[in-house]
Amino acid sequence: MTTTRQTTVVIFGASGDLTNRKLIPALFNLHLKHRLPEKFSVVGVSRSPFSHEDFRKKVEEGVKEFSPATYNPRRWARFAESIYYHSGDSTKLEDVHELHKFLNDLEDSKANRLYYLSTAPSLYIPTAENLGLTDMADERNGWRRLIVEKPFGVDLASAQQLNWALHKIFKEEQIYRIDHYLGKETAQNILFLRFANTILEPVWNRNYVDHVQITVSESVDVGHRAGYYDQSGVVRDMFQNHLLQLLALVTKEPPSTLDADALRNEKSKVFAAIPPIHLKDTVRAQYDGYCEIEGVAPNSQTPTYAALKLYINNWRWEGVPFYLRSGKAMAAKTSEINVVFRRPPLTMFENGTDESFTNNVLTIRIQPDEGTSLKFEAKMPDANVTRSVVMDFDYATSFGECLIPDAYERLLHDALNGDATLFTRSDNIEYAWKIIDPVIHGWETSPKAPPLVTYPVGSWGPKDADDLMGKGRVWLQLEGMDAAKNGGEK
Amino acid sequence: MTTTRQTTVVIFGASGDLTNRKLIPALFNLHLKHRLPEKFSVVGVSRSPFSHEDFRKKVEEGVKEFSPATYNPRRWARFAESIYYHSGDSTKLEDVHELHKFLNDLEDSKANRLYYLSTAPSLYIPTAENLGLTDMADERNGWRRLIVEKPFGVDLASAQQLNWALHKIFKEEQIYRIDHYLGKETAQNILFLRFANTILEPVWNRNYVDHVQITVSESVDVGHRAGYYDQSGVVRDMFQNHLLQLLALVTKEPPSTLDADALRNEKSKVFAAIPPIHLKDTVRAQYDGYCEIEGVAPNSQTPTYAALKLYINNWRWEGVPFYLRSGKAMAAKTSEINVVFRRPPLTMFENGTDESFTNNVLTIRIQPDEGTSLKFEAKMPDANVTRSVVMDFDYATSFGECLIPDAYERLLHDALNGDATLFTRSDNIEYAWKIIDPVIHGWETSPKAPPLVTYPVGSWGPKDADDLMGKGRVWLQLEGMDAAKNGGEK
Repeated sequence: MTTTRQTTVVIFGASGDLTNRKLIPALFNLHLKHRLPEKFSVVGVSRSPFSHEDFRKKVEEGVKEFSPATYNPRRWARFAESIYYHSGDSTKLEDVHELHKFLNDLEDSKANRLYYLSTAPSLYIPTAENLGLTDMADERNGWRRLIVEKPFGVDLASAQQLNWALHKIFKEEQIYRIDHYLGKETAQNILFLRFANTILEPVWNRNYVDHVQITVSESVDVGHRAGYYDQSGVVRDMFQNHLLQLLALVTKEPPSTLDADALRNEKSKVFAAIPPIHLKDTVRAQYDGYCEIEGVAPNSQTPTYAALKLYINNWRWEGVPFYLRSGKAMAAKTSEINVVFRRPPLTMFENGTDESFTNNVLTIRIQPDEGTSLKFEAKMPDANVTRSVVMDFDYATSFGECLIPDAYERLLHDALNGDATLFTRSDNIEYAWKIIDPVIHGWETSPKAPPLVTYPVGSWGPKDADDLMGKGRVWLQLEGMDAAKNGGEK
Repeated sequence: MTTTRQTTVVIFGASGDLTNRKLIPALFNLHLKHRLPEKFSVVGVSRSPFSHEDFRKKVEEGVKEFSPATYNPRRWARFAESIYYHSGDSTKLEDVHELHKFLNDLEDSKANRLYYLSTAPSLYIPTAENLGLTDMADERNGWRRLIVEKPFGVDLASAQQLNWALHKIFKEEQIYRIDHYLGKETAQNILFLRFANTILEPVWNRNYVDHVQITVSESVDVGHRAGYYDQSGVVRDMFQNHLLQLLALVTKEPPSTLDADALRNEKSKVFAAIPPIHLKDTVRAQYDGYCEIEGVAPNSQTPTYAALKLYINNWRWEGVPFYLRSGKAMAAKTSEINVVFRRPPLTMFENGTDESFTNNVLTIRIQPDEGTSLKFEAKMPDANVTRSVVMDFDYATSFGECLIPDAYERLLHDALNGDATLFTRSDNIEYAWKIIDPVIHGWETSPKAPPLVTYPVGSWGPKDADDLMGKGRVWLQLEGMDAAKNGGEK
């Protein structure tokens, strides 16, 4: 990065977990790679009283714990010089005035600023409004950008309200709605896989694809987030953002350029083509014991697992079912997309292992072991039958594990460079809610809603999800990372 | 195999190398797998005087050396009981009469017989004629089949003559022309790969394939075969059979069944669609020092290396060049097919490693390490560029090395079962010569013939072969097996 203009990252909610686990480690690693502007500062803001030095100590612990491979005291000491802390309540205008003064003193007269809203969602609008009232969104003395953490609303109405409120102060081009799934290397690789290769695109459509499975499973339970989670549930927590984003990456048309808006236009086109999801094509479930957790309502109807079947009514995908599932307390932590192709028109060879011929499957593993594999049929040696074998490509093996950066590193770097490609545009967000809202609403109100069933902790979910697949289709066996190895992740 | 009828395999040329290295080990392994008929005998025939016991000892050495994993004395002793030897000259009618008597004494009144012509090619016709004159091709008392080893003729005229001569005595269905390349697991797997999978066939045509490379390289020099080789040359030795057979497997249309004739019809259709090869699309070369070898004419014009470019003028392949090359004394021993796909229509991503975007390549490795791999583009972590990576499937890793049987085992088993799928039909052979003959003839007589160039021992051939590729195409780097590890192979 060659800009000589000073740049400040202002983190609202700086005493929170995300700052320690993700944001400061990401900025530290960008610093080590010389990818930050030459004149660079981070200012942490929250109500807690910290001295600059106390705050540096606190976040240093985060780097030690969450980026041990790159941490060392000497390197850290250099970076720590650019870290500051300012105590204040961002919902109080006078506090934001104070912050503004602090920033102006710290910076040259012309500096760029990236505001990071890492607070409770209820503070997004008041904080943004105060930034507006203090002219802190004004770009005359350098660019001003706003990163908004998820969740972005709890339904369509609240998301629209948040968009309206932000748009009164910031232009859409200034707003970076983050979904860290989009910063993961393998999520980004989906577009490369599809559009940098010749041989996938010709079969990437309804003529050759039988169906697609997208699984984002967590082996952790709701843990200390029970109170928040019970208000939200798995559909808001995972489907509205991660799963629909992955769906869009897998299904969208090739854009004519890699320009942020070209890519996000294609995403909106996919969402707009999804017809309302029938309630009979949904499954909702709670893991056993969920209602006994502290913070959860004893008669809670909040699903911790859901599976949906949806369609995309366009020329490419009409008639192809997409099966999405996600849950807590499942057998393994994994994010995986499986594109299951149709059978060959003529089965000339016998299958040696089971009755049914096995379909080709292209698997895109987002986590934990990022990679791509292709299941295909090969001749079994010394017999005239086929057997399924796997051609595999593993990201870590091919590129070296240490090279794979955390999603936040990529996303912060992009935001600093004004590249909004991996951030969600206001219309993308609203479309996603339009798809999800009727499901949640239907479950809460419709007599046609499927019953809320339960599933054992450490399972792959309720049997109802198998029934959802219908005629001869099954959820593929996933490996994932077992619960023992599984740490929490934002 | 459940037939109770006695079956005898009669090997003409039984004192030769092939019997020891391939035929008896293959039959022994079929015996161990209980794939031979219950009542089974092998009768070796050649002019050398051996007692049954001497012959058994001799071939036991072959099994020890070439099938050490399955040999043990107890197992062998059981199988050896079914081995006999009969001394005689198959070109002498009285000797064949004697053989017939010997067989009749050995067998029940009704027995099946598989004759294996493993003699010098000049003995094929006289031997067959004597089998005819002694009624040994007559099938009233059991089937009679004839396996004919390569070479099958030295040009179209001699191949036709051999076909005519054999057809006077045997029906085409009785004749099994062997090309052991077709018995290799990976060669057989080509059809499984293409037709048991959905996703390859849609891109397996001129719309998506840029060109195809087929390499069969040997690291050994001509060695003790110099005298034979100098008469034959690489085109007769390798192209007319192995390379064209591989070409047919890669390019033929899906048959409606796996019936032997359905498959061989498709092979003839491919050969019939190949227009005459231009001499300017050929390269011929000798390795340095070839002419100094004993048995080679001092001014020999025999090529030990050739490369050809040819086309297949049908709907699937029109305009797609196929590059075939083969040679002795090359850098490595390998047989590999590379299907190089076109570039994507739009290159949206930067390529991190070199100027040119890398095409997708599907590689089918026939030997030494049988397998399939796909080279594709993936996102390089921590950068917005693509890099070529390889998805790989290795036969031995997936199925266990010891399971992969030798080609002769499969082919002998098929012939005993009357399955001619992997054997070459008379029209296939003649078509292949029609493709190859004009090249050899042109080199010997035409002023437009390319010069006979030389190449260093242990190289990948002459530079002229690179020029053959033209505009932006290059021979792919092959790994293969280095010369040190490389034993001879029929």
